[in-house]
Amino acid sequence: MVGIILSDLVTEILIPAAAVVGIAFALLQWLLVSKVKFSADRQPAPGRKNGYDEYLVEEEEGLDDQSVVVKCAEIQSAISEGATSFLFTEYQYVGIFMIAFAILIFLFLGSVEGFSTKSQPCTYSKDKICKPALANAIFSTLSFLLGAITSIVSGFLGMKIATYANARTTLEARKGVGKAFITAFRSGAVMGFLLAANGLLVLYIAINLFKLYYGDDWEGLFEAITGYGLGGSSMALFGRVGGGIYTKAADVGADLVGKVERNIPEDDPRNPAVIADNVGDNVGDIAGMGSDLFGSYAESSCAALVVASISSFGINHEFTAMLYPLLISSMGIIVCLITTLVATDLWEIKTVKQIEPQLKYQLIISTILMTVGIAIVSWLALPSTFTIFNFGVQKTVTSWKLFLCVFFGLFAGLIIGFVTEYYTSNAYSPVQDVADSCRTGAATNVIFGLALGYKSVIIPIFAIAFTIFFSFSFAAMYGIAVAALGMLSTIATGLAIDAYGPISDNAGGIAEMAGMSHRIRERTDALDAAGNTTAAIGKGFAIGSAALVSLALFGAFVSRAGISTVDVLTPKVFIGLIVGAMLPYWFSAMTMKSVGSAALKMVEEVRRQFNTIPGLMEGTGKPDYATCVKISTDASIKEMIPPGALVMLTPLIVGIFFGVETLSGVLAGSLVSGVQIAISASNTGGAWDNAKKYIEAGASEHARTLGPKGSDPHKAAVIGDTIGDPLKDTSGPSLNILIKLMAVESLVFAPFFATHGGLLFKIL
Amino acid sequence: MVGIILSDLVTEILIPAAAVVGIAFALLQWLLVSKVKFSADRQPAPGRKNGYDEYLVEEEEGLDDQSVVVKCAEIQSAISEGATSFLFTEYQYVGIFMIAFAILIFLFLGSVEGFSTKSQPCTYSKDKICKPALANAIFSTLSFLLGAITSIVSGFLGMKIATYANARTTLEARKGVGKAFITAFRSGAVMGFLLAANGLLVLYIAINLFKLYYGDDWEGLFEAITGYGLGGSSMALFGRVGGGIYTKAADVGADLVGKVERNIPEDDPRNPAVIADNVGDNVGDIAGMGSDLFGSYAESSCAALVVASISSFGINHEFTAMLYPLLISSMGIIVCLITTLVATDLWEIKTVKQIEPQLKYQLIISTILMTVGIAIVSWLALPSTFTIFNFGVQKTVTSWKLFLCVFFGLFAGLIIGFVTEYYTSNAYSPVQDVADSCRTGAATNVIFGLALGYKSVIIPIFAIAFTIFFSFSFAAMYGIAVAALGMLSTIATGLAIDAYGPISDNAGGIAEMAGMSHRIRERTDALDAAGNTTAAIGKGFAIGSAALVSLALFGAFVSRAGISTVDVLTPKVFIGLIVGAMLPYWFSAMTMKSVGSAALKMVEEVRRQFNTIPGLMEGTGKPDYATCVKISTDASIKEMIPPGALVMLTPLIVGIFFGVETLSGVLAGSLVSGVQIAISASNTGGAWDNAKKYIEAGASEHARTLGPKGSDPHKAAVIGDTIGDPLKDTSGPSLNILIKLMAVESLVFAPFFATHGGLLFKIL
Repeated sequence: MVGIILSDLVTEILIPAAAVVGIAFALLQWLLVSKVKFSADRQPAPGRKNGYDEYLVEEEEGLDDQSVVVKCAEIQSAISEGATSFLFTEYQYVGIFMIAFAILIFLFLGSVEGFSTKSQPCTYSKDKICKPALANAIFSTLSFLLGAITSIVSGFLGMKIATYANARTTLEARKGVGKAFITAFRSGAVMGFLLAANGLLVLYIAINLFKLYYGDDWEGLFEAITGYGLGGSSMALFGRVGGGIYTKAADVGADLVGKVERNIPEDDPRNPAVIADNVGDNVGDIAGMGSDLFGSYAESSCAALVVASISSFGINHEFTAMLYPLLISSMGIIVCLITTLVATDLWEIKTVKQIEPQLKYQLIISTILMTVGIAIVSWLALPSTFTIFNFGVQKTVTSWKLFLCVFFGLFAGLIIGFVTEYYTSNAYSPVQDVADSCRTGAATNVIFGLALGYKSVIIPIFAIAFTIFFSFSFAAMYGIAVAALGMLSTIATGLAIDAYGPISDNAGGIAEMAGMSHRIRERTDALDAAGNTTAAIGKGFAIGSAALVSLALFGAFVSRAGISTVDVLTPKVFIGLIVGAMLPYWFSAMTMKSVGSAALKMVEEVRRQFNTIPGLMEGTGKPDYATCVKISTDASIKEMIPPGALVMLTPLIVGIFFGVETLSGVLAGSLVSGVQIAISASNTGGAWDNAKKYIEAGASEHARTLGPKGSDPHKAAVIGDTIGDPLKDTSGPSLNILIKLMAVESLVFAPFFATHGGLLFKIL
Repeated sequence: MVGIILSDLVTEILIPAAAVVGIAFALLQWLLVSKVKFSADRQPAPGRKNGYDEYLVEEEEGLDDQSVVVKCAEIQSAISEGATSFLFTEYQYVGIFMIAFAILIFLFLGSVEGFSTKSQPCTYSKDKICKPALANAIFSTLSFLLGAITSIVSGFLGMKIATYANARTTLEARKGVGKAFITAFRSGAVMGFLLAANGLLVLYIAINLFKLYYGDDWEGLFEAITGYGLGGSSMALFGRVGGGIYTKAADVGADLVGKVERNIPEDDPRNPAVIADNVGDNVGDIAGMGSDLFGSYAESSCAALVVASISSFGINHEFTAMLYPLLISSMGIIVCLITTLVATDLWEIKTVKQIEPQLKYQLIISTILMTVGIAIVSWLALPSTFTIFNFGVQKTVTSWKLFLCVFFGLFAGLIIGFVTEYYTSNAYSPVQDVADSCRTGAATNVIFGLALGYKSVIIPIFAIAFTIFFSFSFAAMYGIAVAALGMLSTIATGLAIDAYGPISDNAGGIAEMAGMSHRIRERTDALDAAGNTTAAIGKGFAIGSAALVSLALFGAFVSRAGISTVDVLTPKVFIGLIVGAMLPYWFSAMTMKSVGSAALKMVEEVRRQFNTIPGLMEGTGKPDYATCVKISTDASIKEMIPPGALVMLTPLIVGIFFGVETLSGVLAGSLVSGVQIAISASNTGGAWDNAKKYIEAGASEHARTLGPKGSDPHKAAVIGDTIGDPLKDTSGPSLNILIKLMAVESLVFAPFFATHGGLLFKIL
């Protein structure tokens, strides 16, 4: 057996170093974005390659029009203020909930041993003495709060940079699509790197601080650390649901009156809901998605750590091997940094056709480099053989098998990304078929779109199943957890190309509102169409990793709850399974209905303004944007509570009244059912959006027979797009939080359920 | 312990007697329907209470218009010919498949012991000698063919009576809604009773004939009998999918051009697809649904019998107790007979408002009477205690617990029926909300409709979960199987109210085509609106029972395959679970795409005819109905093959290559995921259809603000209705066949898989 090459000291230095490099790189990108000034006085920055020292391929009129720049700046600050104000309101409400839930965690976990301060035998190594359950309660609560705060910071910073970058992207679009692309992409990268690096750094610091108390009791230490994942995901749930309702209420409301009834373009400044719509992109697609992926990242790290702590790494106190998950993430930051440079500095795009390939190369390059990266980390940080806890027994694993687990996860992510691209990009036949079906009206468009979403599930599920089978066979639940980490290891790049989408969307909105020329709008639309695809790819990653993470957490929960099999053919488990499979439907019903109701209110308000404000349609009257912003804010705050409660309370109710077997069934059921709806909802929505854009752009002979804007097929496409909005941006992406969150919550509360759970069956 | 009260001889007489009574009653109803003559010369039939000897509340003009009657007769014969010709074409193709599959069954099962003709030790009672595997192969093949033929006969007879009754319902509608209701309802009853009684009789005869060979080897006998369920369901699959594609291609195609583009009413004779549309109702909703419910009935009987054969009933050769499932069904026929008389003879409806309550009372009355019925059967046919095979051990069960299992199934069916009614009837707020959302266009209509479907899943799943938990706890898989039988025990009534829907729908179509007055169309529309709800209720029963049946079959499969636990936390099972949960999506994608493509072809043809046939819109030119019928026929025959192959091949491929553990996962996954999509798809579609009807009928202040026909909200409602068509009549109801069929196929092939399966893992 070959030992671990990397010394613990080097590990202790490498991880924070990588995090710091990531943060520095993010700040550098921010600095570069900030070079785009809100003034017409372009000052060349000498020596920058992508820069301002050369005139551009597609030079454009209006570059020196000071009034346009001022207008952009105004709109940007309106969006930024709206988004900030909404997030603060949201955080207030969620903050109260978080504190209440933190108290609940403390009380439940503290009560396991009756709040005793005495040390106790460890759960897994009965011969050793571990810290009291009360300590677990306190530190779980702390890490829960830490996770929630990190999630808030991640989402908030993402929103800030996005609202900082949107108007700048618009201004750069005057110079050509390449400049605009780089600005949007850099801004996405700021978010990606900040989030990945922050998540890693906070987790690293928390582990080291907790270690001061826990010492050699790694079992207790890493059990307490799982609270970090729970905090991250709880926050993400409300961020996704609240933000999703906000953005789609505004979007649907604006479209229904503006595009459908009044025949004015998208993002027309006369539309009173237009600012709310643009705010929504930032609070939903940016802040919500940031929190979501941070949650996935935190949970997969926690799942891997908690399993490792009861495996040979934890038992033998091999610190470097123990922190293998964090080393993978550190390597990911470095790999993504190199990948980003390819897009920003090595290969500048010049035409619209290059946008999608460029984004795709980002995925491919990061995956290939990361394959080398994980090989290096696995070689340096792992002993050649070790054992992994596998439902009561220690399973022997070799380091190359663990490498394969991460590798499978990484490539499953790439496959999911490609399949998603195929089904949602208007460069391929599926979306073109959907567009073509608009010829016969909205009904066939919807039928084809739904069928497309269903079909798009097939290959991702096989990819996930393949990964699960081999990771599970090779290294049990630890294998699954590191496969999830593999999929998320290129998170910085994934987030960059994902966040790029809403930024481009906003940029287009600002161009329209500032009254910029048609050509600029065409460029931002091209960026946005690619953004729809990358947003769908991002959601694909989020869902794929959520499936793996949930399974790993589920496995850890089962171990911690002390059950050895989850047999479908027992009534307790089966009813859990079937009810669990129902939960995503219940949850989707709630969120979709919320979007629908909020949109109806928005429609009424927008209609009211068009009918009562004189000169609004003519452009002489000024719409009342603030009321629309308020409607979205109020609706989303109010409506996010019931679905949030459903997800947060289900594991508690099932665990307390029905016990851990039924809860296992619920977790398995919601996992296998939720992942399908989530994928199909995201892709259906993405496809409808791009089918509409395909008709609008009219870039091919076929597309032109369906257009132009305002034709019957285009109207049918707009209806599909509107239906897709809540599917792809509210209910779909929230579902992966549902499955992850229920799993991590079950894991955190497992000690309580194992001791006091299953009341109903105890009575019966 | 109290023994069995009912002697075997009495059982042997009672079961066929009940079946014969059922058939006689069906023929009597047919006779009564046939009293409605295609002549204006009304001859009062004295002494009949509901009859023709009194003049009616809503007497109507045109009663003596001979030309209308002749026209109705012509249209009816066109529909009947179209349906017959389609079914014959379908049966030819399916017949070839059935023969091929029968050969496969024989070869696979025969190869288990290498086609040896030697007797062998029994599977479960190793100390006894059973018939050779070759006998099992032969008799399984025979019963498979028998099931397929019975299914064909059931579907075909249902179609025949429906096409016989539709024009008669139209004619009766001239006299008032009550008369029309009774004609449609009686015709539904013919189908219900024929199907229930035929299914029972054939099964009974098959058991007695097989017994001549098998003698005391009941284990082998009832294992071979499961082929009956497989045959029934295989046929049902093609019937549902083929019929579903046929009907919806025609319906969607007709609506898209007629209602949306040309602004002509539904079922307008100028529309070339109108005959195909009406044929479709009969081959899809009637023949397909008949085959489907027959399949459920056959499978739940087989599942119960196969478990009973290895329980104390089978081991002790207690013939009466063994045939408990058939006795329940016999009692069901008698109970439904009494229930039917209430609607046809005791309480005649007079107004539109009474239609829905009348149908609801049918459900309630049959359920209450059946509760008494199952109590009597359980008391007479069961020993006070007995044992049931439960995954390797014999579990002691008391007769009152088994009574409770059937009782829970029965009432779960009622609850599912009520919930379905609540979510799909336009008398309640959910559908009214959906209708209201049409105010803001098709997009909100679709969003609200989808949300409604998702929400409608919640209570049915809890009802099913409750039933499963207690039935499973009380009497293992036998409990689940008899719970399914309980739900299906009132199948004759269920089918009557279900088949009533498409008959009314056709009646309305004929009224329109024959140019009858507006008031008659209003009456048939009222019947049809209630029919949409009962169709959804029927689908609810089909799905609920399918969930229970599949679980019972799944349990029997697991027992037969010799695995003792299906542990989610093993990689083999988990990948099966997640892939299984994906299959309903794959299947739905195929069927929806098929409907969409076929509808597009239909749209082109209808447009072509409108554009090229002179005077068609003016009513002077004659449309070419035959080409539209051919398009639907060709499309459905071609398109039913891939989804059919998916369902039929999956268990074989998984069983052969991945083995019984993975197959168990696939069955569990497809069950828990498919049941949700099936319920939500049916209810969403039903709700959209009735939201449209709600606006059209304009029966309330609220409804009138949304109407009239042709208003913007009405147009939005039509789009929703069109989208719902493939959901509620093609993909949704086919899904319950998917889950049942995969389970029964796995059970039939279990001996083969257990011996030769899992090749891939054996190689690895």
